[in-house]
Amino acid sequence: MRPDLTPLGAAVRDWRRRVGAEHVLTDPPILARYGTAVCGQTRDVPAVVRPATAAQVRGVVAAARRHGVPLYPISRGRNWGLGSRLPVRDGTAVLDLSRLDAIREFDEDAHVVVVEPGVTQSALCAFLGARAPWAHPNVTGSSTDSSVLGNLLDRGVGYLSPRMDDLVALEAVLGNGRLLRTGHWGSPGLMGHRWPHGVGPSLNGLFTQSSLGVVTAAAVRVRPRPRRQYGVAVTVGAEDGLRALIDGLRLLHVQETVRTVSHVFDTSRLRTSLNLDGGVWTAFLTAGGSPAVADACRADIEAVLGPVGDVHIEELDPSAAPAPPEPDPVLAARRGVFDLMLGRPTDKAVELLLARSGEPYSPGRVDLSRAGTVFCVQAVPLAGEAACHAVTLARHLGAEHGFEPSVSLNAVSPHTMEFVVNVLFDRREPREAARARAYVTALHHALMAAGFAPYRLGVQDMDVAARPGDAFWDTVADLKHALDPAGIVAPGRYTTV
Amino acid sequence: MRPDLTPLGAAVRDWRRRVGAEHVLTDPPILARYGTAVCGQTRDVPAVVRPATAAQVRGVVAAARRHGVPLYPISRGRNWGLGSRLPVRDGTAVLDLSRLDAIREFDEDAHVVVVEPGVTQSALCAFLGARAPWAHPNVTGSSTDSSVLGNLLDRGVGYLSPRMDDLVALEAVLGNGRLLRTGHWGSPGLMGHRWPHGVGPSLNGLFTQSSLGVVTAAAVRVRPRPRRQYGVAVTVGAEDGLRALIDGLRLLHVQETVRTVSHVFDTSRLRTSLNLDGGVWTAFLTAGGSPAVADACRADIEAVLGPVGDVHIEELDPSAAPAPPEPDPVLAARRGVFDLMLGRPTDKAVELLLARSGEPYSPGRVDLSRAGTVFCVQAVPLAGEAACHAVTLARHLGAEHGFEPSVSLNAVSPHTMEFVVNVLFDRREPREAARARAYVTALHHALMAAGFAPYRLGVQDMDVAARPGDAFWDTVADLKHALDPAGIVAPGRYTTV
Repeated sequence: MRPDLTPLGAAVRDWRRRVGAEHVLTDPPILARYGTAVCGQTRDVPAVVRPATAAQVRGVVAAARRHGVPLYPISRGRNWGLGSRLPVRDGTAVLDLSRLDAIREFDEDAHVVVVEPGVTQSALCAFLGARAPWAHPNVTGSSTDSSVLGNLLDRGVGYLSPRMDDLVALEAVLGNGRLLRTGHWGSPGLMGHRWPHGVGPSLNGLFTQSSLGVVTAAAVRVRPRPRRQYGVAVTVGAEDGLRALIDGLRLLHVQETVRTVSHVFDTSRLRTSLNLDGGVWTAFLTAGGSPAVADACRADIEAVLGPVGDVHIEELDPSAAPAPPEPDPVLAARRGVFDLMLGRPTDKAVELLLARSGEPYSPGRVDLSRAGTVFCVQAVPLAGEAACHAVTLARHLGAEHGFEPSVSLNAVSPHTMEFVVNVLFDRREPREAARARAYVTALHHALMAAGFAPYRLGVQDMDVAARPGDAFWDTVADLKHALDPAGIVAPGRYTTV
Repeated sequence: MRPDLTPLGAAVRDWRRRVGAEHVLTDPPILARYGTAVCGQTRDVPAVVRPATAAQVRGVVAAARRHGVPLYPISRGRNWGLGSRLPVRDGTAVLDLSRLDAIREFDEDAHVVVVEPGVTQSALCAFLGARAPWAHPNVTGSSTDSSVLGNLLDRGVGYLSPRMDDLVALEAVLGNGRLLRTGHWGSPGLMGHRWPHGVGPSLNGLFTQSSLGVVTAAAVRVRPRPRRQYGVAVTVGAEDGLRALIDGLRLLHVQETVRTVSHVFDTSRLRTSLNLDGGVWTAFLTAGGSPAVADACRADIEAVLGPVGDVHIEELDPSAAPAPPEPDPVLAARRGVFDLMLGRPTDKAVELLLARSGEPYSPGRVDLSRAGTVFCVQAVPLAGEAACHAVTLARHLGAEHGFEPSVSLNAVSPHTMEFVVNVLFDRREPREAARARAYVTALHHALMAAGFAPYRLGVQDMDVAARPGDAFWDTVADLKHALDPAGIVAPGRYTTV
């Protein structure tokens, strides 16, 4: 067989030398799987490279630059509904970082854990459970197998805080070949795990929702568990109760009684993510601190939300064993969310998704089953009127497209909610899949026309925000040219170039 | 007179056309004043340009680029002890932004005020006092006349939080001529004043401690006053009480009982900044929230710090008129700090500085009197042992250089303190001034050798951190070349280029 003289052929040979032949995948069926996602899209993936260390990542990036083959870094590839592991553009090789799965360091004194991209929620929680029972993991409701770092870099939202708030410092291989550590992490001493801004420009933000570098590790803050923690569920029995519920949450967040992320789910979200029928709007929140402060917060929450809905409050016990399966669906749903607040990740939502196609859950099946889902994630004011407006838009447009969307609203600051909308569809029906994706794109535009803005984008929707000729995106392009002059890293991901 | 054909001459003519002749200063005595600072250094300042609007700033930057004359932006120029309004390098024209003093917008719904660089602490507080009595200004102890934005951009620390935590979005004129607004501020809609990260790379941090652009406005978060607020003063009677005091503060910050910035002052700082003799270490902190939460915090603080020192706690009343001058120095000092916690800026520290040269305070006199001062600002762990180590180093090195330094330690996160050291000297004695500056530089190096790291740098000390050949600083240089290819903006400020 004659050698493949294309740039891709040369890159593959180079990568094989660097990471071992068995970690460079070019087998068409495997590539087809990497190019298939639960959102119903596909990409032409020419190769997959699976380095095991940051040093190998440097080599892989150097080879990609030399041969002009772009790379799309993924962590665990569980960015379900927003593209999974699909590159933005066809012809981009996937840089699969799941073998970089070390918890490199645990600085108990600074409350920092250094994780690589392949570290999953369950791996981190197991580690902390064994080494630091005082630690309170900040988990999302996505799945046990999703990457802590991957989710952080896309500015995902945990139950305790937006994950980016936990970020102390990053290690990244830049497209220009440099290995950068942000803040004080690059200097010897005590502050690299403590002060996120370092001295000089504060660069962490640059590598979130970004194609400016391949992040190979992050120093992430671990909170101690509050000495007392309450879980709160508030159920509102009427559609028009949403406004007062959100306004009540706003008050609690503004006055800092609640300093974690409150979640509000509609009926459809309760059903699809928590297997719960009934309740029109349900809010889940948590508060805590010293026993005295926690009790004061509890009293505030009761006073503010009591007039708005049915308020259930219970003390959460991190030392209790996970409860046995609960036959009562209301109790089971509540238990599931309270477990997330305690820092115990779950697969509930993806189990329910796969149950639609009659399959048991495994992480690898999500992108291959017939159950499809696609997400629209926007930012809306934490204010009742705005939230109601956004929900109405999502539902009207959903009806036009023939979908009943699932909605959640997550308070990520005292002024902003992450507005998460998704629809389910059958991937065996190409027209249904196309309609679902069209709905999400149209919803982005409709919400933007109403004054809202994207919070996070799926691979199909980067150009909803990123437009050439706009001062912000042209600046991002300038930064991209500076750090990645050959355009090797994730072309098109949160950038116009 | 023949026209000045140098690049500077051409730039001056161009600037005069753009901002009016009276706002381009080239008179040698005026330039000499701009080139003189309380830290005892001088710079050769070839011109001063004073635009009045962001549009004029764009024009001034364009002319500077055309003629190759670099510009050093200042806000109010009150960066006393860290360089005041001195450029890092000789030959840089000063871009004085003090005429951009508009409070452009107050978004009461989003709790955001849009300020230009010339807005002082007192102007903002007066505005909020009239328009939004509910607002709780986050002030520093520097002076009423200092710039809110200038201090924020150097990552200054207010009594409620590091000012950067209040930053929602920035408007900046880049060296390449572009007018950038960060986050969602550049797009129409509701989120520009709400969500700091926007969508895509989060760029705010890039323009703090930075020479990457001329910031012409910022959207800054305004907190509501807590419904109940306590001020706390804790006095420790022995030198070796510092360790337990800091460890107590750490506990209160980690468990989020205290979510503001706690300040710890040594005897010398109490004397030079608060005119208080006595007390060996005094901590000032504040906590609040709803009445129930505030009272719970008060109980926690008493329980944790009661065993450590004399704890005085009182409820702070934002509606009370400023107290009359207080003859008891202990009460007067406490009153002064509690006023800062209430959001009332003061000139106390600079009044005391100028009193050393027998002069009444006015902002313009600080850089011209014989009273000199220079600061070293580092980051140290919020931990008793580390704090004691840093203090010991500062004092030993102070004794070697013939100074008694003033020290404060300010908790800027649950894991980091800003360690602020300064010495006073007589500017009529050039050797004393040189010795003071040598002490500060030596102290930076000694603290770094002990594992600490710079928090903020004076103009004389940029190269303490910024070194070519280092991956972090080379990346900053790449970013600088991308956004300011002609090197027009603040050469040498937190950059090697």
